[in-house]
Order: sequence, then structure tokens, then C-alpha cells
Amino acid sequence: MPAGFVWGAVRAGIKASGNPDVAIAVAPGGAIATAMYTSNLVVAAPVIVGRRHLLSTGGRFGAVLANAGNANCATGTPGIEGCVATCVAAAQTFGCIFDEVVPSSTGIIGVPFPAEKVVAAMPALKSAVGDTAAHAEEFARAIMTTDTRVKMAHAVIPIAAGPESPISGQVRIWGCAKGAGMIHPRLGTPVGTPPAAPHATMLVYLFTDIAADVPDLNAALAAAVAPSFNSISIDGDTSTNDTVLLVASGASGVRLTREVTPAFDSALADVCLSLAHQIIADAEGVTHVVILDIQGAATPADADLVARTIANSPLCKTAWSSGDPNWGRLLAAAGRSGAIFQTENVRMWIAAEPVFEYGVRAPEFNEAAAHAAMMQPEYTITIDLGEGTATTRFLTCDLTAEYVRINADYST
Amino acid sequence: MPAGFVWGAVRAGIKASGNPDVAIAVAPGGAIATAMYTSNLVVAAPVIVGRRHLLSTGGRFGAVLANAGNANCATGTPGIEGCVATCVAAAQTFGCIFDEVVPSSTGIIGVPFPAEKVVAAMPALKSAVGDTAAHAEEFARAIMTTDTRVKMAHAVIPIAAGPESPISGQVRIWGCAKGAGMIHPRLGTPVGTPPAAPHATMLVYLFTDIAADVPDLNAALAAAVAPSFNSISIDGDTSTNDTVLLVASGASGVRLTREVTPAFDSALADVCLSLAHQIIADAEGVTHVVILDIQGAATPADADLVARTIANSPLCKTAWSSGDPNWGRLLAAAGRSGAIFQTENVRMWIAAEPVFEYGVRAPEFNEAAAHAAMMQPEYTITIDLGEGTATTRFLTCDLTAEYVRINADYST
Repeated sequence: MPAGFVWGAVRAGIKASGNPDVAIAVAPGGAIATAMYTSNLVVAAPVIVGRRHLLSTGGRFGAVLANAGNANCATGTPGIEGCVATCVAAAQTFGCIFDEVVPSSTGIIGVPFPAEKVVAAMPALKSAVGDTAAHAEEFARAIMTTDTRVKMAHAVIPIAAGPESPISGQVRIWGCAKGAGMIHPRLGTPVGTPPAAPHATMLVYLFTDIAADVPDLNAALAAAVAPSFNSISIDGDTSTNDTVLLVASGASGVRLTREVTPAFDSALADVCLSLAHQIIADAEGVTHVVILDIQGAATPADADLVARTIANSPLCKTAWSSGDPNWGRLLAAAGRSGAIFQTENVRMWIAAEPVFEYGVRAPEFNEAAAHAAMMQPEYTITIDLGEGTATTRFLTCDLTAEYVRINADYST
Repeated sequence: MPAGFVWGAVRAGIKASGNPDVAIAVAPGGAIATAMYTSNLVVAAPVIVGRRHLLSTGGRFGAVLANAGNANCATGTPGIEGCVATCVAAAQTFGCIFDEVVPSSTGIIGVPFPAEKVVAAMPALKSAVGDTAAHAEEFARAIMTTDTRVKMAHAVIPIAAGPESPISGQVRIWGCAKGAGMIHPRLGTPVGTPPAAPHATMLVYLFTDIAADVPDLNAALAAAVAPSFNSISIDGDTSTNDTVLLVASGASGVRLTREVTPAFDSALADVCLSLAHQIIADAEGVTHVVILDIQGAATPADADLVARTIANSPLCKTAWSSGDPNWGRLLAAAGRSGAIFQTENVRMWIAAEPVFEYGVRAPEFNEAAAHAAMMQPEYTITIDLGEGTATTRFLTCDLTAEYVRINADYST
């Protein structure tokens, strides 16, 4: 585990199931943090408060306080005040300042936030924290909602001494995520940086013991998020609470210098890709993970439009659930995406099976082979738009009757 | 029935079910037609050929030839040639010129088009046509695919004589539609008019015995389509084949003068609204029809974004299937729509039940009452964005396990 952190979780009575639902990660010696939040115009109280706290401290971090079972969204001023009250209680309990606490919530929208339950849990949380992998896993489990599996990933980066990095050693990254529905993250730019183009609840927490300042963490996080969390969709519903938090304790003694950056960025990207894949593989009702490999687009924006439109097309997603090689639905979705291409220049493959080329069904199209490929738990659909050189790789899943059952369940 | 038309349908062996699958409507004395086609970039052969024919004749119409069971889309040059061959055969059979035939197809995408089956059906079609309501209903039934009900609507407009309209009489409109999935029509402007903003398979045929020229038909059709077929969604998947065809035989002897226009436009709008409602009420797997009444938007585009995003949100649609008044999903979808508003100014109602206002759950929120309202087969959700005066009214439906079953069915 990365040095410089303790984790813990307790039952506070917010989840109807009675499972652990309040979690904390503390950097007892302090840390530096940055975050990327949802670009939904409607945002939860912890997104508003967390952004404010990270800005007011310039990234100084004491703890992240997370709960599941209530999103604290559409809860108005009482929601904001309740959120702040929980930060104050955590700061008092764990010895930092209230704005060094980053709050986080996931669960139902629009139900008044039970701040008093979170505050009352503080003594138990204080007793629960520890620095082992088991403690960190408790944290990761407490933030789960409809997730069926805990989602964690880690990396160890060996660092040799160099001109800019006198200290050799190891840097560790450990991250966890939750999210199985309302997943189509379109995370904005890191807090305090200019907004770019806009973007379930997905919560992701990344802890590392490297020493870094906020601009370097921003650059590393933005680069790692683009091909991972910002390139996945379960249902197209971008949440009001999406959060990716990166915290660096510095406890390894290794600084994020230019020498170290490539290895760190690569390791962080791997951790983020692993967590993003774990989210899709545990999607509500999922039976197949589909990788969309879009090639030959005129622009990156066009590649993105084709990928997102197919990923969120009910007709594509239902066909995937039965392994139906109904590739016409892929083409129809691409056609309504807004991307520009010529139908007769498009080529498509399901796994290695050619399905469409030169405006017609591929002569080699083998329905049985395409169906067999689609019965694998994970496969790639490749679409070459034949317009240019832009590409994207997007991760999504099928739509099943079980997804409908989970989300029609009145108790959620 | 409107005078000046005959209708008929036969079994040509294109539908796997063996049901009637080729239909024709003929104007033996000629007619004037216009059409609005899908704005999907990928379009079926009959859309390409139909647009070309309407342009080359200036709207002169002999017949519309429709088949179900094969979309003739992504079928390349053979698909175009097959489509033209069926038009030629129909023209020879029914005594017009090939480009006076408007072709239309619906069914699976990407399967070679069996033009020879349509051509072989011509003698039987010739024997089948007639001018009664029963004949027209045969036409409407033959174009059905996953539809469970035939969709028809009609209007009779009494016309008094006036300075511009010396002939009193009656004008009749009869229309039919098919479509239960891949329904999110975004029809472009009428053929031959400048493109505006772009827009399942939905096929709609409107026949009237008024006498009118193409510009007047264009104006009437565009006005009737905007609040009807272009304001509905079942699954967000805009088809490659959507077609709305309006044909005017002139056989009533009444001309579409300025005096007559208001009554005709109003009747045409009513017929289109009825057919659009019938499409949503027969959506694949539907259990609830939902009317989205969006008010107080800053711009019509914002009202449209909010309506379409909610209408296509899997989380909103699944909640509707169980009558779950989980209004937070409505707010989250509005927030990701791209429309601009202030959350604290938004107000929402489910039927007459207030659910959200001033940034929080409405004090009068009565979950049991909201649930009861949502268990009705049809109800309205009203959202006032509190930003301006733009409004829209959009018709959609829930997402059920039955929708998934229908569209995961490999045989489709």
C-alpha cells in the first residue's frame, strides 16, 4: 500500500441493507490532491463543497470522507450545510482543517442527506482506520451500491536515482472505484484549471505516496482519465456525483520530476484503465463487455461521436446481449451520431470477422462465426470510417432484462 | 376514404412470418406528393431513390410501393438497382412512369434486397387493389413489423365556398403508420427544400383528395410533422428509413387556397398527432406512455434537449416501467442534456403531484400519490426550467424487459 495513508469504514445506517456505508481515507501527515468532477449541470452537494475545498486550500488534503446510500443531490442548502458539517466533524476527529476534507456521496438523488448519521459515526471511524490492504479494501467495499464486486487496482513503480531525482526507491499507487449504473462519465478538467468540453455515479479514489504539486497531479490525472473513465459507458446516464480524486502523500520520498513522470503516468494510466474495465465488467445486468475500436475518423470528435452513440444505442446493446450479429444497427447508430463519413468507405469487423465493406455486407461475412465471437464475455467491434486518421477506443457493455429489473426495482 | 386512390397488399415471401409484406397505393388519375425523410447520414436505397424520383418529377406521383421485412439499407449498388427495378415493374403494372413511383422499405438492415420477389408480386397486387377502407387497411397491415396494432387515422374537412374557393365540398385525409422500435424520428425538411437541422424505421403515408401544389404541401407537412413525428422517441435510435409521405389527389375538387389552409393544416396536424401517439402506445414492450411537458426553457433548443435526453435516458425509462417516482433521475438527465438552467429555479410535477422545487424535494411530495399517478397507462411529467418562455411537448414511453427480449431476439 502507498505510505502516508490510513483507511477505514463503518456502518452508519444510510444503506437500507445495513452494510458499511461511511468510509474515510486520511493522510495523517498531510497530502496534495486534485480531482475531476462530473460535467453534469446538476451537481451534488459534495461536488460543490469538494471543489470549493480543493480550491480554497490549493490542494492541501487531510482526508476524503465518502458515503453510499444517499447522493446528497437536489437537497438544496440543507444538503450543502449537512455536507460541510460532516467535513467539520471529520476534521475534528482526524486532526485537520475542515476544508482539507474532501466529501463524496453516492446513492439516491433528492432524499434529504442524513448528515447526523455521518457525524455520529466519527468515533467508530476513528477506531476503524489502519494502513493495511485490508483496511483499504474496507474503504472500497463501503462505497459500493449496486456493484457486485469490489474494484481495486495498484501499481508499484521502481525509481532509480537520477540527476533530478536523487532518491531511489519505490512509488506505490492504489486505487478503488465504485459504479455499475448511471455510468457515462464525462469528467471535466481538474479543479482549478480552465474548463474544456463538458461530461454515473462513478467514484474513484487514487492514492499514491509520490511527492507532487497540484499542476503535476492535474496533468497526470487528466491524461490518465481521458482514455479510461472518460471512455466508458454503461447506460449513457452521466451522474451528478462523478468524482475522480488523486491524492499524493509524498511519503515515498520520491518526487514527481520530469525523469519520473513517464513511469508514473504510465502506472497511473494502467491503474485507471484497470478500474474503468472493472466498472464495465460489473455493469448492472452485464453479460458481455464490448470494446469499440473506431478508426479512420475525420476528427477525434467524430470518432468519439460514433463510439458514444453506438455505446448508448439500445438496439446495439440488446443485440449484443444475445450475440446477434445484426451489424446494421451499428451502422444505423453511426449514421445518426453526427459524425461525417461516406457509407461506401466504411468497413466493420466483429472480433476478426468482416461484416461490412464497400457499402454492402462483406462477402466473407460468416454469421455463425460472428455469433460465436459475440458469445465470448468480451470482444472488440472495429469500425473504420475511411475518412481520416483519428481513432478512439471505448469500453461498453450489453443491455439486458436484468439491467431493467435492477433499475425498475422500486426500492432503489 | 379520400377519393382518387386505390390500395392493396399481397404476400411476397419477404417476411419470415409469411404475412402480407408488399403494399401499394396508386393514384390512377395522378397526384402531387412530397416527403420528409430521415436525417440519418446512412440512408436506405428507397430513401435515395424516393428523393430522386420526387425531385425529378417535381412531385408528380403515380404510386407508393412499400415492403416490410427488408430495409434495403447497406445493400450498395445492387440495393439501388433492385429498388429501381421494383419501381419500373410497378409503373408498368399500374400505368405510370417509373419515377412517379415512390419506393419504401422497412425491416432488417444489410440483407440483400429480394427485388425479384417484389417484381413477381405485381400481378397479384394489380388484382388486390381497391378504394375501400378495407383495402387501405390491408395496405396499413402489410407494412407492420414488430407493431402489434395497425395504426390509422383520418379526418373529414367540410369546406364552404368562398372568394378563393368557389367549390364547397369535403376534403378527406387518411393516414397510416408503422413503427414500434428504432423510433426517434428526426425528419429533415421536405424533399427539394433547403436542409434545416437534422432527425426509427417509421413509415407514414398520408393521402388526401385536396388539390395542392408542392410548396403548399411542403408547408403543411413540415408544420404537422414538427410537433408529431419529430417529437416522439421510443429508444433514441433514429432509423435509416424514416419516411413521411403526403399525397394529394385533387379528386375532391377543392383547392388548398389560403382560405382552406387553416382547416386543412389543423386536420393534417390532428391526423399526424394521432398516428404519432399510436406509434408510442404500441412501442415494443411498452407499459406506460409518458408525455414530457417542458416549460420555461431559455430557448426552444434547450427545451428540446431536455425532452430528448429524458426520453432516451435508460434510468428514467426503467423507473417509469415500475411507476417509481425517482424524480432525481429526471433532474440528472436534464442536467446532462446540455441545456442551461439553474437547479434552484427548476420545478417538476408528475401528473399533478409536485416533486421538486427551489432546489429540494417539494414539501408536498407524496410518494404514494406520485406512484399511483405513474401506474396509469399514460401521464404527463411537467418540468419548468425557470429560465425563459420556450416550451415543448414530447411523447415517449418506458423501457421494459420485454423491449430487451424483442430486440435481443436473434430472429429479428
